[in-house]
Amino acid sequence: MKARVNCVGVGVLDLIYRVDKLPIGDGKMITEDRREVGGGMAANAAVTVARLGGASQWFGRLGQDELGDRILTGIAAEGVGVEGVRRVANVISSHSIVLVDDAGHRLILIYRPHELPADPAWMDPAKLCDCDALMADIRWPEGAAHALRAARAHGLPGVLDADVADPASYPAPVALASHAIFSHPGLQRATGCDGVEEALRQMATRTDAFLAVTLGEHGVAWLDGDAVRYLDPVKVAAVDTLGAGDVFHGAFTLALAEGRAVEAALGFANTAAALKCSRPGGRDGIPSRAEVERRFSELNTAG
Amino acid sequence: MKARVNCVGVGVLDLIYRVDKLPIGDGKMITEDRREVGGGMAANAAVTVARLGGASQWFGRLGQDELGDRILTGIAAEGVGVEGVRRVANVISSHSIVLVDDAGHRLILIYRPHELPADPAWMDPAKLCDCDALMADIRWPEGAAHALRAARAHGLPGVLDADVADPASYPAPVALASHAIFSHPGLQRATGCDGVEEALRQMATRTDAFLAVTLGEHGVAWLDGDAVRYLDPVKVAAVDTLGAGDVFHGAFTLALAEGRAVEAALGFANTAAALKCSRPGGRDGIPSRAEVERRFSELNTAG
Repeated sequence: MKARVNCVGVGVLDLIYRVDKLPIGDGKMITEDRREVGGGMAANAAVTVARLGGASQWFGRLGQDELGDRILTGIAAEGVGVEGVRRVANVISSHSIVLVDDAGHRLILIYRPHELPADPAWMDPAKLCDCDALMADIRWPEGAAHALRAARAHGLPGVLDADVADPASYPAPVALASHAIFSHPGLQRATGCDGVEEALRQMATRTDAFLAVTLGEHGVAWLDGDAVRYLDPVKVAAVDTLGAGDVFHGAFTLALAEGRAVEAALGFANTAAALKCSRPGGRDGIPSRAEVERRFSELNTAG
Repeated sequence: MKARVNCVGVGVLDLIYRVDKLPIGDGKMITEDRREVGGGMAANAAVTVARLGGASQWFGRLGQDELGDRILTGIAAEGVGVEGVRRVANVISSHSIVLVDDAGHRLILIYRPHELPADPAWMDPAKLCDCDALMADIRWPEGAAHALRAARAHGLPGVLDADVADPASYPAPVALASHAIFSHPGLQRATGCDGVEEALRQMATRTDAFLAVTLGEHGVAWLDGDAVRYLDPVKVAAVDTLGAGDVFHGAFTLALAEGRAVEAALGFANTAAALKCSRPGGRDGIPSRAEVERRFSELNTAG
């Protein structure tokens, strides 16, 4: 039996245009090189679960447009269940314009349609909780709070991906999560505090959730009672960190769904995210289960 | 009876995203402010003809996608005939990404799908020439050559909008046009020559077309036998030059279709383009016939 993970939040399309050179300020460029890649925190987490051998569903909102069609098709093609997706008429789906030049510079414009209804009441708690663990991202805070409340009521692990968002987005989902894992900029935004240890301790006064923060090439820090503990980074030659946070949260939630202890789940997720960074592309670079297990067992043997 | 103008070439959608501040080099921005405006040289010329009281049709190529649907709807809503449009499956229609910041800086990325078939043979010469004058833009050089050849065979005025393009694009359409009107950068690109008078004379060795070049705030220069003559600019407080060249070519071709002499047609077009520059927006800023006639007659009275 595959472990089952439901993922609630954002799914987007990255529209990537390659140009010779990004202009400085004003400018005009022409290109024939355009490609589309699926992205979005919860959608990528759901794809990660599927790649890593779990069963996943994505719950989120899309416009009833061609962009939305292509977002949905891309996610479904990875074997992710998409029955819990709501389409909204007369909305241009969330997308990012990514301009990449030959020197590797990137200019990213994120478009969020303000017409997407925030109200998550259409998501049936019983369906959300028909799984072994749930994750939700901070970019749809009302959806995350609704889903994490349901998970708590059903006694399921409820993981919050707490990346950068409006500071007002954090309190409700963080209080309801069983595990809130921040990015470093997300933790700074949520607490107004630069120091990792101080910020984690401050956050602990607001929630009973397990608290951790991903630190990129510096590994992961988490709160163990009053102590802040650290997990070493997995050494890779990083070529592209795009989507690494999404992979971390998908892998972490899957590990909990499979019954791993939290420290082992952190190690598994840390390994999956590092392998993702060793290859180009966001969703394209998500590793397989066999790759993660091999690297993870090497690390544990070495350790 | 309305004079009839057929316009052959490019129709696009400008996707305009407003951001606080354009980044320099790498960067990440977020916005909820997105709007769409129709554009494209031949499509805007056809809209200009309709606004100025003529009857116009647009001949061009679009993807069979939602962007293409919206381009077509926008043009048809102006009263332009769109039966001569070919839709192509599995192609993302031509569009431009325009990032505008609060200081008025613009970063423009033009996307041209290379999958649009260049071959213009599907355009029936008899249909193309069922009009009083024809215009074509340089951005689809094969289409322009085909249309201008047909106009020449039918004894119709055939106007080329010779803006910036690949240097290899110019020879065939320029040789076939009855009137080739360049932008200054277009003339430089076509001849490799910076000086206006030298470039016009060089161009005259390659075509029997009437030759002119629009010089923005410096008016228009044209070749009258061996002499280069100048038309004064129409004084306006320019706020937005977007689409001014398209308006010039639409108005100029309409004037020829109505039987005006070439010098009067230049004056009419010069006035229409200047009025367009006095107001914001590309297609939105195209003036009405009454506005152009009033200003044009004031100028002629004053002169």
